[in-house]
Amino acid sequence: MKIVCDKKDMLNAVNKVIKAVPVRTTMPVLYCVLIDASGSLIRLTANDMELGIETIMEGTIEDRGILAINAGIFYDLIRKMPEGMITVSSDENYTAQITGSKAHFQIGGMDGTEFVRLPYVEKDHPIRLSQMSLKDMIGRVLFSASPNDGNKIMTGLFMEVEDGKMRMTALDGHRLAMRTIELNEEADPEEEIDLSVDGDEEYGEEAGEAAPLKISAILPGKTMGEIAKILPGEADSLVSIYVTEKLVMFEFGETVVVSRLIDGEYFNVSHMITRDYETCVRVNRQEFMECLDRSTLIIRDNDKRPVILNITDGVLDMKVDTEIGSMEENMEVSKEGRDIKIGFNPKLLLDAMKAIEDDEIDLYFVNSKSPCFIRDQQESYVYLILPVNFVD
Amino acid sequence: MKIVCDKKDMLNAVNKVIKAVPVRTTMPVLYCVLIDASGSLIRLTANDMELGIETIMEGTIEDRGILAINAGIFYDLIRKMPEGMITVSSDENYTAQITGSKAHFQIGGMDGTEFVRLPYVEKDHPIRLSQMSLKDMIGRVLFSASPNDGNKIMTGLFMEVEDGKMRMTALDGHRLAMRTIELNEEADPEEEIDLSVDGDEEYGEEAGEAAPLKISAILPGKTMGEIAKILPGEADSLVSIYVTEKLVMFEFGETVVVSRLIDGEYFNVSHMITRDYETCVRVNRQEFMECLDRSTLIIRDNDKRPVILNITDGVLDMKVDTEIGSMEENMEVSKEGRDIKIGFNPKLLLDAMKAIEDDEIDLYFVNSKSPCFIRDQQESYVYLILPVNFVD
Repeated sequence: MKIVCDKKDMLNAVNKVIKAVPVRTTMPVLYCVLIDASGSLIRLTANDMELGIETIMEGTIEDRGILAINAGIFYDLIRKMPEGMITVSSDENYTAQITGSKAHFQIGGMDGTEFVRLPYVEKDHPIRLSQMSLKDMIGRVLFSASPNDGNKIMTGLFMEVEDGKMRMTALDGHRLAMRTIELNEEADPEEEIDLSVDGDEEYGEEAGEAAPLKISAILPGKTMGEIAKILPGEADSLVSIYVTEKLVMFEFGETVVVSRLIDGEYFNVSHMITRDYETCVRVNRQEFMECLDRSTLIIRDNDKRPVILNITDGVLDMKVDTEIGSMEENMEVSKEGRDIKIGFNPKLLLDAMKAIEDDEIDLYFVNSKSPCFIRDQQESYVYLILPVNFVD
Repeated sequence: MKIVCDKKDMLNAVNKVIKAVPVRTTMPVLYCVLIDASGSLIRLTANDMELGIETIMEGTIEDRGILAINAGIFYDLIRKMPEGMITVSSDENYTAQITGSKAHFQIGGMDGTEFVRLPYVEKDHPIRLSQMSLKDMIGRVLFSASPNDGNKIMTGLFMEVEDGKMRMTALDGHRLAMRTIELNEEADPEEEIDLSVDGDEEYGEEAGEAAPLKISAILPGKTMGEIAKILPGEADSLVSIYVTEKLVMFEFGETVVVSRLIDGEYFNVSHMITRDYETCVRVNRQEFMECLDRSTLIIRDNDKRPVILNITDGVLDMKVDTEIGSMEENMEVSKEGRDIKIGFNPKLLLDAMKAIEDDEIDLYFVNSKSPCFIRDQQESYVYLILPVNFVD
């Protein structure tokens, strides 16, 4: 194999696929990135058997062939190569030669045919939205998923597509985050199939026979985190998502990401969300965040002590008391309904505040034992946070 | 005690002194910063018994007194306070009240009278140079000191003042770094005493009876690293350095740093430095650095394999061979004297290259067993690097 490409293009491509290289694996070839120049395109692949990423890059194929090469070493090498064109070649012993300007490296590679290719995903019923919308949505929901495997389903993002809307939900037993967007605003009508439609129209008009798209799947949190990282996030470029029984595939630009789905049934989220409330408070998000941030200062990491919000007419008073000391601060708010005194882990409130973009936000309370909801009128976002008991 | 000050000033002051707060100590009061408002100035102090830092800050004293308060908690608190004025007060139980805008904290402090004040340093024979020169010098020498305590003296910076020059040296058994500057260019003639003079003049003319200043001391590397961090580094502001038998004091702006000296006799450095050479090579520093940087890519951290420089007329060829692979690169150089083939730990060469500011630099070699010297004509810098044996 022999290819010639620009250092920048190679670096960019390796940087994308390297996110799927496993930290630990029993199959040494998976520590490699596969360079496949056996056809007319240069294709780079990495695969940890859960998540696989493949991308096509610019370059000239001088000798067709494939090569697997240690991803970490290759990435560092390319990164420190002089700017300009580089040549990557290999011989029958899988020894790689990497040359750029006067710098010349020789490194042992592996047999590319032993590499595990990405599984096949049938490409019908695409879900289409802008790269920006997907990247944004992941960032505003994923933090509420559980980071550890105690309950596998809680580590996932629940994706639902129905009635031309896409919804993503994450929860970890203490909180829930949910975002909903209209797909019809996102799709490009010039694409081959357009299944996303305006809410009030008849479904599938443009595609003729296509049925209304209804999909739900639990996407691994890790996969979604990596996608958020490598998505360029352009407002006018699309991502296509294909879901099968076991797999999900994301296609954007020259890149394909395939991931296994998490098996099982997601929680009945609609049962968790109530719209009744006894108290509604409108706060300035920035001010509330700064207050909450200060309250965390005197709570040690392993301390479960809550911050106590005492909400009366026009005033939200915040108080914490720990072995380090105490903090008190109040802010002006506009309140509707009953007074309430309720305790929270301030970190959970803070995380939700950071994920919301509005300047003024509404918090809804029922009583001091019931979850607090933060949502806008259209419910484009819903954040639920469980309160913490406290002794008054 | 009660003081009122601007959040920015307090943050700035705490940020300076906090560098002297110990990570571990058997005296809990040393985890604190001392706020001394017993006189007419607000003075902050931290002291780990090796290194002490004291600074005076702007503010109004409403009630005189002193207070010791946990440095880490206090720093975080001040950092996250709303912008504007803050009040710090304490009562007879050493409970601190910290208020800024509507935010109010209460935190247990300690008895400030238990705090260990900085030792007294007699202020005669100051060494004066610009903040920029001192900061610069430390950064260009300190990396060559030994980071660990196996040989205490090797962890220090050796400072010598003689003939109106200041020299700093650091070495770790594999390399040596030395910088020399003229003090006369630095001193401000309007300051009370000016002991730095031009090389050819009679000493001490301006100060009348002052004797020519001759000082040598081993300064702890840690102290010097912290000073480099907190020195504003302005070209037109001075630092005064006072050395006694056991202590060194640095005075700049409103800040005083006192440190113990390292006991003992420094190495006879002048015996290590030779000016004979068989080969002199002039290289482009940037190009040489990039080459060396690439050569480190295929050397594992615990691998002692050297990079081999093969220098012939007009060409420096660089080669490494390890279990990961091999690297070869050559660059154009101008050479004087014999051809030479010599091995080095590329990291040591790289560190020296990073510490030099010249675009073109000269390397001097005797043979493949003798140290390489990198120096300019005036010897304002001298870097010595020991070679590594290799099997050809």
